[in-house]
Amino acid sequence: MSEQLVQRLCDELTKLVLVDPHTHINPHSPASKTLADIMGYHYYTELAHSAGMPKSQIEERGLDPKTKVGRLVESLVHLDNTVQVSWLVELCRKFFGFNDERITTSNWETLYDKAAAKMAEPDWEDQCLQQSGIERVFLTNDFDDPLSGFNSQRYIPCLRTDDLVFHFTNPTVHTRLAKATGIEPTTVEQIRIAIGKLFEHFSRNGAKACAISLPPSFAPRPPATAAELNQKFAAAFMQADADPDVRRLGQEFVFWTIAEFCADYKLPFDLMIGVNRRVYPEGVYQGQDLFDQRVSLIQYKDLFNAFPQVTFPISVLAQISNQELVSYSWIFPNVVTNAHWWYSNIPAYIELDTKARLQAVPRNKQIGYYSDMYKLEFAWPKFSMYRQCLARVLATDFVIARKWSENDVLDLGRQVLRGNVESIFRV
Amino acid sequence: MSEQLVQRLCDELTKLVLVDPHTHINPHSPASKTLADIMGYHYYTELAHSAGMPKSQIEERGLDPKTKVGRLVESLVHLDNTVQVSWLVELCRKFFGFNDERITTSNWETLYDKAAAKMAEPDWEDQCLQQSGIERVFLTNDFDDPLSGFNSQRYIPCLRTDDLVFHFTNPTVHTRLAKATGIEPTTVEQIRIAIGKLFEHFSRNGAKACAISLPPSFAPRPPATAAELNQKFAAAFMQADADPDVRRLGQEFVFWTIAEFCADYKLPFDLMIGVNRRVYPEGVYQGQDLFDQRVSLIQYKDLFNAFPQVTFPISVLAQISNQELVSYSWIFPNVVTNAHWWYSNIPAYIELDTKARLQAVPRNKQIGYYSDMYKLEFAWPKFSMYRQCLARVLATDFVIARKWSENDVLDLGRQVLRGNVESIFRV
Amino acid sequence: MSEQLVQRLCDELTKLVLVDPHTHINPHSPASKTLADIMGYHYYTELAHSAGMPKSQIEERGLDPKTKVGRLVESLVHLDNTVQVSWLVELCRKFFGFNDERITTSNWETLYDKAAAKMAEPDWEDQCLQQSGIERVFLTNDFDDPLSGFNSQRYIPCLRTDDLVFHFTNPTVHTRLAKATGIEPTTVEQIRIAIGKLFEHFSRNGAKACAISLPPSFAPRPPATAAELNQKFAAAFMQADADPDVRRLGQEFVFWTIAEFCADYKLPFDLMIGVNRRVYPEGVYQGQDLFDQRVSLIQYKDLFNAFPQVTFPISVLAQISNQELVSYSWIFPNVVTNAHWWYSNIPAYIELDTKARLQAVPRNKQIGYYSDMYKLEFAWPKFSMYRQCLARVLATDFVIARKWSENDVLDLGRQVLRGNVESIFRV
Repeated sequence: MSEQLVQRLCDELTKLVLVDPHTHINPHSPASKTLADIMGYHYYTELAHSAGMPKSQIEERGLDPKTKVGRLVESLVHLDNTVQVSWLVELCRKFFGFNDERITTSNWETLYDKAAAKMAEPDWEDQCLQQSGIERVFLTNDFDDPLSGFNSQRYIPCLRTDDLVFHFTNPTVHTRLAKATGIEPTTVEQIRIAIGKLFEHFSRNGAKACAISLPPSFAPRPPATAAELNQKFAAAFMQADADPDVRRLGQEFVFWTIAEFCADYKLPFDLMIGVNRRVYPEGVYQGQDLFDQRVSLIQYKDLFNAFPQVTFPISVLAQISNQELVSYSWIFPNVVTNAHWWYSNIPAYIELDTKARLQAVPRNKQIGYYSDMYKLEFAWPKFSMYRQCLARVLATDFVIARKWSENDVLDLGRQVLRGNVESIFRV
Repeated sequence: MSEQLVQRLCDELTKLVLVDPHTHINPHSPASKTLADIMGYHYYTELAHSAGMPKSQIEERGLDPKTKVGRLVESLVHLDNTVQVSWLVELCRKFFGFNDERITTSNWETLYDKAAAKMAEPDWEDQCLQQSGIERVFLTNDFDDPLSGFNSQRYIPCLRTDDLVFHFTNPTVHTRLAKATGIEPTTVEQIRIAIGKLFEHFSRNGAKACAISLPPSFAPRPPATAAELNQKFAAAFMQADADPDVRRLGQEFVFWTIAEFCADYKLPFDLMIGVNRRVYPEGVYQGQDLFDQRVSLIQYKDLFNAFPQVTFPISVLAQISNQELVSYSWIFPNVVTNAHWWYSNIPAYIELDTKARLQAVPRNKQIGYYSDMYKLEFAWPKFSMYRQCLARVLATDFVIARKWSENDVLDLGRQVLRGNVESIFRV
Repeated sequence: MSEQLVQRLCDELTKLVLVDPHTHINPHSPASKTLADIMGYHYYTELAHSAGMPKSQIEERGLDPKTKVGRLVESLVHLDNTVQVSWLVELCRKFFGFNDERITTSNWETLYDKAAAKMAEPDWEDQCLQQSGIERVFLTNDFDDPLSGFNSQRYIPCLRTDDLVFHFTNPTVHTRLAKATGIEPTTVEQIRIAIGKLFEHFSRNGAKACAISLPPSFAPRPPATAAELNQKFAAAFMQADADPDVRRLGQEFVFWTIAEFCADYKLPFDLMIGVNRRVYPEGVYQGQDLFDQRVSLIQYKDLFNAFPQVTFPISVLAQISNQELVSYSWIFPNVVTNAHWWYSNIPAYIELDTKARLQAVPRNKQIGYYSDMYKLEFAWPKFSMYRQCLARVLATDFVIARKWSENDVLDLGRQVLRGNVESIFRV
């Protein structure tokens, strides 16, 4: 009966059309063309590699899409337990008429061809969104993205700022910034003006958020004075091999300046906290990053206090950070919980995290989920996974333990799934 | 059937009258007078503020109780999901004849008036305790509390020592200590003697515990020699802005001295580990503290080894500390687990923590729960929440998984709820 | 019905005969002779001590086995809730015809005598293994173990290297190494050659793994040059009280050299990460170690990258490390998850950890369980505990949530229980 309750809640929640508040969709090519686009998602390439397939086979130069899929399918026998592979099977069932339990070396070619035919339909993008119950999709845009040539009602720009904060000393970043803004960033004040121009451009083009991913060691502080920064300008902003303490001054200045413009432009600042890049440099593309769980939100204390007018939707990579996230969201008005990110995006952790959040964070401060997808086909299975977890927590902790009516828990579920996305990002 | 089992166990456990081993009750005014006393609990003010209400509205000077409640009720629409608001609703149902699902802008005034009438009854304190199944209540007393003018059979003194250890350099602490003991703390030896006088006073007045809350950075060590401490006396004990390393010598000396007197007076020393104070200084009263989960019980290794004759009931703020607490309690005879504190006091964490403790810590070393309440009305909903969690763990992990009889699990439940409070605190 | 499903899966998994991939069995005396061998396991002595029994009573010199058991039985009244005591009761039921719910001061003598009679049967070792469903057992051998005089088909050697890495400066280690290899370790090159001889000896005698336990502070780095190491030879390799930074150079060199030989000899290198030794030096034998959970697998980044050809089965002591273990195993081809170790080896944590691993780590990279036992009688109750947890996760997360067939989940269970032990350790 409890399983029936979960299913009933899940079915109702599935009727709600959603706004996906964080993805890596390319709005010029949002949907897949073949299964290679789908199975080229780093989850499959990195898991295939982890399970024993050499990187050289997966990333062989000039590999045609079908051969690549054929190779990756060989790995699925080691991966079918993973929830990531369940996403793959679920989307093939949903969109491509796949009816088997597993994708195998015997059935993949038929699937490949059926999928290719379906994705070749001219309105595949619309079909996919419609079947997935998604109507608007946040993007992740480079700071120098022209933001033109796509439907910005459907695809909502978001200013991604990792390059500015952490790779400012990279000459190509200078060049890109100068080109995008017409300003050579040769003084602290020019950097500030250039960043302001980016915000103006993004805001004018409908951006609804600014975002950044952050390493566990980062602890933003109010920046040094302009005088000090200008005096140390080269080491702070120009030299990748400068004294790390001085280089950090540059990062802190850029980060703080971005937060100031978030205040000016009334943009929420998505913080995705805790990733170490290139921990396994010989890994496949996008399959090299990991984390150090020894991180605390206390590192962001100065930031949260300095910008009460900026909303910070926070994602944490380490599951153990969830209690801090719950507690900081419970105390700081400007901190809100944001979905279940990457290595924490599996049902075992989603369910634990959702329970704690629903028990202790104000209901208007919880963004339930984003897909983080690169291709539209993934919204369906990822949101489905989340809805299952959410429905389970609503059933056990609210309907059963606290005797809430099903209508009341569905209202809570809908707020977390969609309502808060609208109110927090003003979309 | 399993839900019925949980309910059956819970109902039986509810019959047991309890001793609440840690509260902030003022024995001169233990019960509430209006709903404003109840909704003024920091959980409601901080959550209302977190959900969007300005501090100025909540803490407006001269606000009358009824207006304050009216304002806070407006926030409940954002907070009804939280377990803290479920405590509020539960106690209103239990004590004030409230029958609705939620407290709203439409029904709160009636509730306010009914509650005020009930609480105006001359024996409300007795009624509340009796209905709550509580017969004795530990206090949290300032070190200079005269401990007179209340029923010390019902209200058991506990010497709280945060001020002595962490605010000794504050001149008012010096003054209070001198006034309470008749000793000017101008040498290390005088400090020791003064602290001894406090213990004598508390012990003579029926104190059954000493307690302190500790920041995550604290790591007590055997103190420096008296000679060194006297030489650095000003920086160690008098100056709030002294070199932190020397100031820490003072904190370590006071802390260690307190532990020594706990040994002499056979008092358990409650350690509440992991809170950072004033992380959000613009927060409402008592809604400013948070934590850094990067803390380990290894920091207390010297203490546990140096005082085998002192029992340390330990509460941890970060849920991730629970496994260390379980493991240290499993190995050290003088370490016992103490309830579920503050940010860990929600069902999601209570249930996980209870499971691990019941599976691996000797049953005579577990203090199940304390209410931490400021007003008597909260014992009922908080202990109810805990009993539900405990009953669930007893049902699944003992009756179902290990085939224990219901009588045997109830004995275990009663020991954790009350028996160990009596044996550990000798009450 | 769900409980029936769990039981059905568990019963099927129990039919599978296993290889136990990590134990402390003495192959010259693998089984117990009396209950004192069984109750002398550190879990019982340390828990009895923790619950209040003085170490002097437990470890009294010259205590005869029966008196010792009688004393320990007195503590069981405080310990019957623990899963460790449930192992004891379960093995007494399984092997010694014990039928009561608990071992008490009234029934233990009969049990003691029946157990002694059973264990005196000449084929007890064979009976015990056969009834336990275990056919091969990994050992933990000192580096200077002659590895002779036992059935190495049944008992598989494993080179334990803690002494070499962490106690090299101890003169007895020098002497033992010289004696075992015929080489005086007086230069860096001689140390390397001596370690190589150990690998040759172990490999020739059927060793299938190398293993080490590691403190939370350890972070292996590529070693210093031979020139630097030889220059600092005394402080790095000979003096226990040398500058810790130089001594660490010695530890890093020995550790890295062992990893190199693991590559040469194609041996997996079991890393057991996170134990602090002698945290409670007054504790009973083997009941003195604890941990500091502030540790990260990022500390092993250099190692994992430097030795792609070595498989690292990793056990973590702190439960909070499990997500890092899951994530590093998901990304690094040479990292695999290895069982549930010591303070994490209780159902509450096994179940959480198993859920995350089965949801996100390739199925061919998970070693489900090892017993870590010192006496053969413990394989049965420990593996039974694990099988219950595994069956529960397979039932809820795969049969119910993901609609897998029971046959398919049993295949997954069998791979994790046995198949991967065979493929990873090549046995």
